[in-house]
Amino acid sequence: MEPHIASAFDKDLEAINLSVLQMGGQVEAAILDAARALESRDEELAEIVVDGDKAIDSAEEDINNQVVRLLALRQPQASDLRTAVAVMKTAGDLERLGDYAKNMAKRVPVLATSPLIDGAAGALRRQARLVGQMLTDMLDAFARNDTELARDVIARDVEVDDMTNALFREFITHMMEDPRNITPCLHYVFIAKNIERMGDLVTHGAENIIFVTQGETGIERDKGHSTATIAAPRD
Amino acid sequence: MEPHIASAFDKDLEAINLSVLQMGGQVEAAILDAARALESRDEELAEIVVDGDKAIDSAEEDINNQVVRLLALRQPQASDLRTAVAVMKTAGDLERLGDYAKNMAKRVPVLATSPLIDGAAGALRRQARLVGQMLTDMLDAFARNDTELARDVIARDVEVDDMTNALFREFITHMMEDPRNITPCLHYVFIAKNIERMGDLVTHGAENIIFVTQGETGIERDKGHSTATIAAPRD
Repeated sequence: MEPHIASAFDKDLEAINLSVLQMGGQVEAAILDAARALESRDEELAEIVVDGDKAIDSAEEDINNQVVRLLALRQPQASDLRTAVAVMKTAGDLERLGDYAKNMAKRVPVLATSPLIDGAAGALRRQARLVGQMLTDMLDAFARNDTELARDVIARDVEVDDMTNALFREFITHMMEDPRNITPCLHYVFIAKNIERMGDLVTHGAENIIFVTQGETGIERDKGHSTATIAAPRD
Repeated sequence: MEPHIASAFDKDLEAINLSVLQMGGQVEAAILDAARALESRDEELAEIVVDGDKAIDSAEEDINNQVVRLLALRQPQASDLRTAVAVMKTAGDLERLGDYAKNMAKRVPVLATSPLIDGAAGALRRQARLVGQMLTDMLDAFARNDTELARDVIARDVEVDDMTNALFREFITHMMEDPRNITPCLHYVFIAKNIERMGDLVTHGAENIIFVTQGETGIERDKGHSTATIAAPRD
């Protein structure tokens, strides 16, 4: 945003942005807690994450209502209008990130009683941390309209995708080694896939920041369903 | 919407709604074509679906721009404002449905050269048809503000969830029987999961219709990540 005399719109928007940052903090905590619960087989912590998703959902609803009120009251035009709509979209992305964290946490009780897959939960936690750091930086970029940082976040999504593919190969090996590993590994595969999707959502949020600040992304979007091309195993 | 004298807002909105219905038709075709390509191992049709997703993405962008223009020009208040925002959300849901169809289509080339899993592609096609019919009815409900039909769509999502769980059990059995089935079955598992998520998105769209028409859903939302509780196999 260009520096200019703060309008009533700007002041209202600032309050909404604070809500978004607060919501982002809740989502960040949910992601990291879910991954920690998974690694330490901590069902209580997992339950806290699952229950906490309601607060994230109401935070989104609250932000939507704030934006609708802003639109009705201030009737913004041009770039202000675009910004207001983008904020609503960011809140929507955060809500979906929260859903993925909840989904990860929901798998903890089942996995806590399944055979241990060597290194799986730890690797997923590292993957989740990578996305958590992307989210931290995305929120930072959002707070400061920092398109450079936003671009950096987008660039890091490749690491998440690579890590996901490496994890898939590992899980498939475990499944082939022992049929008893199949069900727990399926859960791990879903978790890895969800963390990959979290990375896509954070990337989407970062693209939004660039869109609002510069009016276009200039980035060719690929939503990165990269597991679509897992090769069939050689016979 | 209550019958009342058509305002400039209503006329503009009607044009946008037509765009949404058109986009919905494209998405419907993508879902059914992707499922058909999967069953008949038709890589050409799959490619058409993958390429066609760009048109779906631009349809969403176009609708977003139309809504932003509507907000700027007509500065709607209260329920009109809520309706305009909901239309944008519906377009967003349709865009994600298109992504899932594209993702299904992307898996066709790999699966076309993998060992055949008895009945899998046919079952997935039936599952996709179920969701396709839900989408048809959701769009119909959207066009006519038919909350009864919207509720009916929501009720049918359970069938999709049940079918998904039945499919998962079947795929796990195939994986346990022969390790060579593991990789193709992983693709099928992802496809089934994505079709289940499509059902959730259509349900979300139906809830949106009720929300706009009645101001609240009165429906307890559960985004139905029902595979989170697949039990571990008994030893």
